[in-house]
Amino acid sequence: WITPTPLGEGKSTVTIGLVQALTAHLNVNSFACLRQPSQGPTFGVKGGAAGGGYAQVIPMEEFNLHLTGDIHAITAANNLLAAAVDARILHESTQSDKALYNRLVPVVNGVREFSSIQLARLKRLGINKTDPGTLTADEISKFVRLDIDPSTITWQRVLDTNDRFLRKITIGQANTEKGFFRQAQFDIAVASEIMAILALTTSLADMKERLGKMVVANDKNGQPVTAEDLGVTGALAVLMKDAIKPTLMQTLEGTPVFVHAGPFANIAHGNSSVLADKIALKLVGEGGFVVTEAGFGADIGMEKFFNIKCRTSGLVPSVVVLVATVRALKMHGGGPNVTAGAPLKKEYTEENLQLVADGCCNLQKQIQIAQLFGVPVVVALNVFKTDSHAEVDLVCEIAKQSGAFDAVPCNHWSAGGRGAVELAQAVRKAASQENSFKYLYNLELPIIEKIRIIAQKVYGAEDIELSPVAQSQISRYSKQGFGNLPICMAKTHLSLSHQPERKGVPTGFILPISDVRASIGAGFIYPLVGTMSTMPGLPTRPCFYDIDLDPDTEQVKGLF
Amino acid sequence: WITPTPLGEGKSTVTIGLVQALTAHLNVNSFACLRQPSQGPTFGVKGGAAGGGYAQVIPMEEFNLHLTGDIHAITAANNLLAAAVDARILHESTQSDKALYNRLVPVVNGVREFSSIQLARLKRLGINKTDPGTLTADEISKFVRLDIDPSTITWQRVLDTNDRFLRKITIGQANTEKGFFRQAQFDIAVASEIMAILALTTSLADMKERLGKMVVANDKNGQPVTAEDLGVTGALAVLMKDAIKPTLMQTLEGTPVFVHAGPFANIAHGNSSVLADKIALKLVGEGGFVVTEAGFGADIGMEKFFNIKCRTSGLVPSVVVLVATVRALKMHGGGPNVTAGAPLKKEYTEENLQLVADGCCNLQKQIQIAQLFGVPVVVALNVFKTDSHAEVDLVCEIAKQSGAFDAVPCNHWSAGGRGAVELAQAVRKAASQENSFKYLYNLELPIIEKIRIIAQKVYGAEDIELSPVAQSQISRYSKQGFGNLPICMAKTHLSLSHQPERKGVPTGFILPISDVRASIGAGFIYPLVGTMSTMPGLPTRPCFYDIDLDPDTEQVKGLF
Repeated sequence: WITPTPLGEGKSTVTIGLVQALTAHLNVNSFACLRQPSQGPTFGVKGGAAGGGYAQVIPMEEFNLHLTGDIHAITAANNLLAAAVDARILHESTQSDKALYNRLVPVVNGVREFSSIQLARLKRLGINKTDPGTLTADEISKFVRLDIDPSTITWQRVLDTNDRFLRKITIGQANTEKGFFRQAQFDIAVASEIMAILALTTSLADMKERLGKMVVANDKNGQPVTAEDLGVTGALAVLMKDAIKPTLMQTLEGTPVFVHAGPFANIAHGNSSVLADKIALKLVGEGGFVVTEAGFGADIGMEKFFNIKCRTSGLVPSVVVLVATVRALKMHGGGPNVTAGAPLKKEYTEENLQLVADGCCNLQKQIQIAQLFGVPVVVALNVFKTDSHAEVDLVCEIAKQSGAFDAVPCNHWSAGGRGAVELAQAVRKAASQENSFKYLYNLELPIIEKIRIIAQKVYGAEDIELSPVAQSQISRYSKQGFGNLPICMAKTHLSLSHQPERKGVPTGFILPISDVRASIGAGFIYPLVGTMSTMPGLPTRPCFYDIDLDPDTEQVKGLF
Repeated sequence: WITPTPLGEGKSTVTIGLVQALTAHLNVNSFACLRQPSQGPTFGVKGGAAGGGYAQVIPMEEFNLHLTGDIHAITAANNLLAAAVDARILHESTQSDKALYNRLVPVVNGVREFSSIQLARLKRLGINKTDPGTLTADEISKFVRLDIDPSTITWQRVLDTNDRFLRKITIGQANTEKGFFRQAQFDIAVASEIMAILALTTSLADMKERLGKMVVANDKNGQPVTAEDLGVTGALAVLMKDAIKPTLMQTLEGTPVFVHAGPFANIAHGNSSVLADKIALKLVGEGGFVVTEAGFGADIGMEKFFNIKCRTSGLVPSVVVLVATVRALKMHGGGPNVTAGAPLKKEYTEENLQLVADGCCNLQKQIQIAQLFGVPVVVALNVFKTDSHAEVDLVCEIAKQSGAFDAVPCNHWSAGGRGAVELAQAVRKAASQENSFKYLYNLELPIIEKIRIIAQKVYGAEDIELSPVAQSQISRYSKQGFGNLPICMAKTHLSLSHQPERKGVPTGFILPISDVRASIGAGFIYPLVGTMSTMPGLPTRPCFYDIDLDPDTEQVKGLF
């Protein structure tokens, strides 16, 4: 998609309209793979994400509510690990080696033995013993103490609620926690690394391994402490054992849809799941199409789709469908601000060819980004009823001149699959072309080089600038052996640059990297470009003002 | 049940064994109604709650994990309300009346109108207008400001995780919250008032009404502020619309089981749901039996069952089954401490008739408590393999002498329903008796009198003693019109008194009431007897050390 307005430009509706066109109108097997929406925005600002008009996933209420509970499972698993981190620090701080050992390896019915999780830990520590009675005092100390440095904890608690008061909190202030208070935060549940893992994993065994590898902090020697060190890998896998299965739903026209995972596009990769894509590909068979959703513009969702998700899945994309709207292009051409909740200015509701033409620079740049990866681009212009014929024609014309394989207007919102038949035909044709897909960077490059390549080639930055924190994090991760991971930039989606107000194609900017973090289980390093909020808030008038339940009919009102 | 040891005495297994005996062995229609366990203890100290041995609910993994997501739905609803409280205070503090009004009642597509939730609020404020343009400045101010006094907020956030570091926290410390930080806490999810509502509600309409009536704080004039005032009733009902449906499961012998709700027995009433009981009663038909579980001893679970749940449901119980174990009776007779995780002392594994005889005073007292309500008591002695014949006979003898209708040993753990046939026969016989069920107090009595009646008649206290806070809370609730609600005592379950270490039948004590709180939506006042923890912690060696998932077979290990 092009760089969106804060209102969204219709990614979900285009995805759904396209599979409806392919299957219900062109008789081609197809499958849509969508992300599960967070309840935070559903009850907060944005509303639901089931598509709209005649391009919707049904049943829409289930889609926007708990569905099969995957996000709740993530919340449970994430927070069990968080509780384990703090409880462990407390227990280690208040007990001797011997007391810890007696509690960790108790005598049960006269027998004292290590659990399998503990045997694995002994192995990692290089202690090749299985009888708890034979450990030396030194080995016992190594075994019982994770020695977590509280100032290095990166594992945060999560909730699937827009609760801004949890952005920065102090925990552990009750007397029972004996003075071990510290500063912490809650993120929105979909920002959990476990969500990123769910989206990238390829099997139950792979998921369990990734869960165990998640780094929660460093120990006092600067070594990473993982979920596996805390003995919680198995429990996390048990909590996630059903969430790993994609949920089968359908569009209004009966096309199958997998709903699975929904990693936060700001600090994670924002794409639907590898498993859903793979199962869907198997189901559609040769000649079938799987349309999978990526979050935000080509600079964010698509770049991460190619450089992160495709590396994990090993799959090669056939076509990029780039969604554009006249509204967003006018904004990039210099139109007034677009704000959620406020009425649109007349520039957006009346014909203005100059604004459209000026804004197409953003579309052109997004097409060029897709071409960096060697994949043909079809531009889908999501037509609104206020768009004029001349505006629509102009966008399609410029898109084709800019290197798009094709550019077509879509009317799936008002006409369902029938309104996206032209798009479906263009996609089929593009998919039959030769394809020279390639990654943008080699994993073996230094972290800093990988960041620079994305900043320059994708965003159009002149260079990058690292804060001292970012620099020391990069050298720490490199030393810890995590230098070969792909990069997941945490950058605003509202501009190609780091400044949301800079529309069109910003140039001449230096991209500031304020911090660099790592999701080792998910398998990426994520540099922070400025501050990225990981917990949305509730506005003065949240969506829930319009949401209601009729107790007699059980009908839900106001959920979109 | 009698006053339990910290290990539990087998409430769930007796419930399951009894229905297995009734249906699979005596051919009588029966249904068990169980509570859904919290994930906190499952991964923390206690483990799961599906029963055990040959008296279990299956599939046990589902029962102990997410099941159909009811507790997750409660967490989501509870925390949406909490987020709404703090966000509202922030928005009111930083905006003028006019700005608030413009945001709360915006112009959408040229039209400005109140939502139905807002119209309801206007009505409550006595403003009989429907056109947003006609409100006076004073009416606008009344409409837009809830004027919540932050120091009176009683609505807490919840998680279904044993996370002791959230017992006391400071929230709102990020710059975006502009200095509005305050002290708060997380409770375990099952302690949410919404869980108590789920357990007591009788229909979707009733649930929605109760959700709207929940009091979250007082305004600066001392008036209660409700979920309805915050405009969130409809959204809460939508989040809870599926949770209201009991989940049908079965025992190992195929007897049907409803699993539904599981309110925290410490600060709520701790009983399974009214709806499950009612549906089950309909299904078993005339002559059938519904066995429904109540938390902890007769002083806690049963008293609340009668005085709170039966008032809501209008149902009259036929028989009380009081569960006892030789182990717990020995503890009451002066046996050594029983601690979870530590091996049992020899007093508990070898015959000791004196300890049993001395401990039967607790059993006798529990029988007397049940008799206060006019319902016949059958004592179910849950036999462990270390109990001697003489010990078992002695308990049954004393129980019958103490006024029990009957007292029988049960072996359902090792023998399934067959091991509880004698119990089932005793229950059938007791149920055919004349029954003179009555409540212990009239709702019209002053709050303080109702508390005193429970303390003296049930606990055996000499009197009660109110802290100044408790006194002022009682007068506030009485003034606010909540004086007629039943009482839900928040007292330790480990003693009939407020001191967990006092076993047997403590006498000569004054029950201290440290605070009095209210769950207006659920419909009870809950006095705190000392401090009741509403958030358990993780021990040094949590249950999760033994929990694992085999990624090939998908088998869960270590979940009990």
